[in-house]
Amino acid sequence: MVSVLLTTATFFNPVQDRIPLVEARMREQSNGHHVDLVAALDHLLSSGGKRVRPVVALLTGSMLGADPDRLITLAAAIELLHTATLVHDDLIDGSLLRRGFPTLNAQWSPAATVLTGDFIFARAAKLAAETSSVEVMRLFAQTLATIVNGEITQLFMNHQPINRQDYFDRIYAKTASMFELASTAAAVLSQVDEHAQEAMHNYGYEIGMAFQIVDDVLDFTGEQETVGKPVANDLRQGLITLPTINYLEAHPEDPDGRLLGIGNYYNEDRVMRLAKAIRESQAIDKALAEARTFVERGLQALTTFPSSPERTALEDLAKFIVRRHL
Amino acid sequence: MVSVLLTTATFFNPVQDRIPLVEARMREQSNGHHVDLVAALDHLLSSGGKRVRPVVALLTGSMLGADPDRLITLAAAIELLHTATLVHDDLIDGSLLRRGFPTLNAQWSPAATVLTGDFIFARAAKLAAETSSVEVMRLFAQTLATIVNGEITQLFMNHQPINRQDYFDRIYAKTASMFELASTAAAVLSQVDEHAQEAMHNYGYEIGMAFQIVDDVLDFTGEQETVGKPVANDLRQGLITLPTINYLEAHPEDPDGRLLGIGNYYNEDRVMRLAKAIRESQAIDKALAEARTFVERGLQALTTFPSSPERTALEDLAKFIVRRHL
Repeated sequence: MVSVLLTTATFFNPVQDRIPLVEARMREQSNGHHVDLVAALDHLLSSGGKRVRPVVALLTGSMLGADPDRLITLAAAIELLHTATLVHDDLIDGSLLRRGFPTLNAQWSPAATVLTGDFIFARAAKLAAETSSVEVMRLFAQTLATIVNGEITQLFMNHQPINRQDYFDRIYAKTASMFELASTAAAVLSQVDEHAQEAMHNYGYEIGMAFQIVDDVLDFTGEQETVGKPVANDLRQGLITLPTINYLEAHPEDPDGRLLGIGNYYNEDRVMRLAKAIRESQAIDKALAEARTFVERGLQALTTFPSSPERTALEDLAKFIVRRHL
Repeated sequence: MVSVLLTTATFFNPVQDRIPLVEARMREQSNGHHVDLVAALDHLLSSGGKRVRPVVALLTGSMLGADPDRLITLAAAIELLHTATLVHDDLIDGSLLRRGFPTLNAQWSPAATVLTGDFIFARAAKLAAETSSVEVMRLFAQTLATIVNGEITQLFMNHQPINRQDYFDRIYAKTASMFELASTAAAVLSQVDEHAQEAMHNYGYEIGMAFQIVDDVLDFTGEQETVGKPVANDLRQGLITLPTINYLEAHPEDPDGRLLGIGNYYNEDRVMRLAKAIRESQAIDKALAEARTFVERGLQALTTFPSSPERTALEDLAKFIVRRHL
């Protein structure tokens, strides 16, 4: 059971001194390249982001004995891969803000935005290669394919009926695959046995699923200032997430809900009415309970390892994920 | 000196039976993914393309003793990387035709086009990882960064004065870097010594530079039916290539030429007039002579290797590059 209210800082502690090294490794990737690329990377890396994925990699590798320098390279590669997918994502969605900061495409042409994303992919791949692990490279390439296949599926499924399995497939591709990469690749670098790799693979998967569910809950319950985007933004874009699925299962008669997935849903009154109904129903609590179940399985995966400050931090990180909504 | 008129087929011979295996390896990359991705990859791979880059890799690896299966994986990875860059390129340029076939962006939304390019990048990276060579992965990532940095530089330099060195930098990034990757990575897979790797690196670089110069000449001298795009298309888009540079050096007084690089150059009469002047000047022959110099250096690099059918084919390929304009 999750019982302690945690602050963000707790789980960073064991690897606190390594975060600046990861930041530096990321920023130096634009060295010697076009001045606008340097500016773009700087803008992207300065626009917030809690570096949760690199922290997962750092904690895992530190717990399991990975070479410190290769681990920093891996953590930087993972965050850059994540950053590159966000750049193309925001372009595709036409998003103008992320975490309250202007997106690249809000300021740059589509051409420059596509190429900047490609450049960051290239540098993420270069860093992944610098870990000197073929298996890490393979995991990287596989994760990128999973993410992109998920985005394409979403693009072509837009405004079509969605069910629980589609939702879980989507959040795996979108979010959990990258957490899974962070924990698994760090375990691979640590050269632990298959059993330990599998445990860390499971940990990353489970907390990644929980992370996205909570993100989707925050889209309904968060304040615009905190979330950095308007409330019920997913619903406004016709994106059906777990709170909506839970609500529709319990209230199949709601006329606003029945229109979802049919043609162009957008109507601000309808969106706000449905969002309010969802918030006031049991759908939110049910979604959070499902997120907690994922977290519990993630915590379970960690029990295979002996106690250590890093294991405690990984546990804290998992628990923090479902406490974020408070 | 280049003295024999060659047909396309000659240089394929020693690896003729492997091309279908490379094609199959490329096509199977969409297996299990979204049906529209399968269709897109099929369209892209069916839209022509002479597979020159995979042939360079196959001939090199076959000459130097690379493992046959890893070599096919490498050749497929290289052609997919090339394909992915073309997909984003065409989107950025707004090109509707490539090799006479509709581009992906002519039929699909920008979002779907960006993601399809990303997916093909991901599969190219996966194949590169499957060669099990960290050095090959590193070369791949480096090449992608070079290509993208070149495109960004070009994007931000559009309509600015250009000189010979800028031109050579640009065609290195755009074309020669990928030929260099094909020959170098195949040598790396073959586990030959540094001297042999360096020789194949030089071969790829030199013929890649020649290849793009001849492409740029064909933009002036080719027929629309053969080239698959309107004559003088580069000039029309404000892109200054070697024939134009040669012409401007010899005819600094041409009023049509003096306007190049200043604001929005496009004016169909002006473009056709300048293209005609360039065609009728020595600029084309001079550019072809420069391409031949690159080819000669490429041939020179091959002399370090004993005679073999593959070496002869690599020589034929190099010579064919500068005979294409006939």
